[in-house]
Amino acid sequence: MTPLPDSVRIREVGPRDGFQNEPEVIATADKVRLIGTLADAGLRRLEVTSFVRRDVVPQLGDAEEVLTAVERREGVSYSVLIPNERGLERALAHRARFDEVNLFLSASETHNQRNVNRSIAESLEVLERTVDRARGQGLRCEGVISVAFGCPYEGEVPPQRVRGIAQRLAEVGCEEVAFGDTTGMANPRQVGEFFAAACEALPGVELTAHFHNTRGQGLANVLAALEQGIDSFESAFGELGGCPVPPGSTGNVSTEDLVSMLHEMDVATGIDLQKLIEASRAVQELLGRPLGAHVLRAGPVEWHREE
Amino acid sequence: MTPLPDSVRIREVGPRDGFQNEPEVIATADKVRLIGTLADAGLRRLEVTSFVRRDVVPQLGDAEEVLTAVERREGVSYSVLIPNERGLERALAHRARFDEVNLFLSASETHNQRNVNRSIAESLEVLERTVDRARGQGLRCEGVISVAFGCPYEGEVPPQRVRGIAQRLAEVGCEEVAFGDTTGMANPRQVGEFFAAACEALPGVELTAHFHNTRGQGLANVLAALEQGIDSFESAFGELGGCPVPPGSTGNVSTEDLVSMLHEMDVATGIDLQKLIEASRAVQELLGRPLGAHVLRAGPVEWHREE
Repeated sequence: MTPLPDSVRIREVGPRDGFQNEPEVIATADKVRLIGTLADAGLRRLEVTSFVRRDVVPQLGDAEEVLTAVERREGVSYSVLIPNERGLERALAHRARFDEVNLFLSASETHNQRNVNRSIAESLEVLERTVDRARGQGLRCEGVISVAFGCPYEGEVPPQRVRGIAQRLAEVGCEEVAFGDTTGMANPRQVGEFFAAACEALPGVELTAHFHNTRGQGLANVLAALEQGIDSFESAFGELGGCPVPPGSTGNVSTEDLVSMLHEMDVATGIDLQKLIEASRAVQELLGRPLGAHVLRAGPVEWHREE
Repeated sequence: MTPLPDSVRIREVGPRDGFQNEPEVIATADKVRLIGTLADAGLRRLEVTSFVRRDVVPQLGDAEEVLTAVERREGVSYSVLIPNERGLERALAHRARFDEVNLFLSASETHNQRNVNRSIAESLEVLERTVDRARGQGLRCEGVISVAFGCPYEGEVPPQRVRGIAQRLAEVGCEEVAFGDTTGMANPRQVGEFFAAACEALPGVELTAHFHNTRGQGLANVLAALEQGIDSFESAFGELGGCPVPPGSTGNVSTEDLVSMLHEMDVATGIDLQKLIEASRAVQELLGRPLGAHVLRAGPVEWHREE
């Protein structure tokens, strides 16, 4: 057996990636309450909202309100997704309310154009200026590379290009680079090969894997990443979120399914699985439809000791 | 990266394990039609029915009718699940219609008692006589060990006990032994360690992994088994099947999700994924509810060449 890390860090992205993709706008008070339950469950990294344009993403139109209402907990790192310099300026009006910024671009030109109407080179320039400004304010920076394992428009994405973008992000000051399988096109062999090379190419950078469960391979991809020593993951409670392209796509890897697998394998997360399931039950009740997370339905394997 | 097998064999168990767990009895003609679509899709191992008691499992009460109506294809191995010697005698009346028998017992005493009202030792005796009789008729024998990775009643199942049962099955004449994660309690670390030891303990026996996706880890467990050189799997189209204990459990690993992952990793199966998805669409339409298979909803990753 390939050895696995003893413990991993998990960033919960449901309050941003999940709520953004819901057809209905969730009330600010509900968002704040759910973010609290996630902190109660032991999540130590929470992406709580995004400073995108209100007219483009009304689901996150209450970014300021959420940020100011969330009760900050000791030991929890709160982050916000920032699309550009304007978004950062809006966020900085509440600088004391968060610790990290998550900045993104796509690994394919087509996806980047359709997503933010810029070339990859233009996005990198924007990102460099944004990171500069954020670091000047003492913020930790995570660069997120979307469609890193395949693009619904372009198909295969050359891994060298993805690593090149990641190196650029590290050079401009990102302490952490996340690789997003935005529409669930990654497979475990590809993931293993990718991270083996990425770990060599990017020493000293925190490398984070962000998988979707679109084709059911989410946790298999997590396993392949773990086997390469990757110990930082992003996921969404309930299996919320997911890019609507292609239609029928399901969401992020579910945080409870991820935590359940990790605990069963004796990989520590610091998360209380039962409390996490309660948080997912609460969001499921709020949304009024059954969510995709498996452990939410079946419950955890009971003989494994919970932390 | 741990090397993976170049190709794997897949036994489709949906027509037995899947149809058995449906609340409604499926019409014989529909079963026969669906089994035909699975053969059309390139499945080369099909478990088509079970000779259990009609009053206990009415869903498979038409075992004789299914067996005699299925059009036998060149190169396809048809198997039937056999609970005991009476079941085998019923099946042998149609000896020319199938190639293999699948015989089962549980790795935990409690599960075996509740399932077949016998101790493991009693089941092994029955199994030995049944294998003898089946082999005398030129039938290939697969021994299936249920709850091999954990029991919903007893919790942890000692892997040494499972390997011991497997060795006994091999000694009495089973060419193949399958290890069933009947209620989805296996995790990839456990699976990897189990098969590493099992491959050493059982040279020359075909070892088959049968996972459920109850807690979303089905394909991660497949990956862990592949990494130990396991190249024989059982799965159900659409993600049908599954043991109803605990309540809320979902089904077998979906054949289309399994095939999609394998093809993406360049592991050959001989299966036409598009035709397989059509078979799952057909059963989904017949059952009138959305099934759990992910690739059925999202479609395959398109840039990968299909065989």
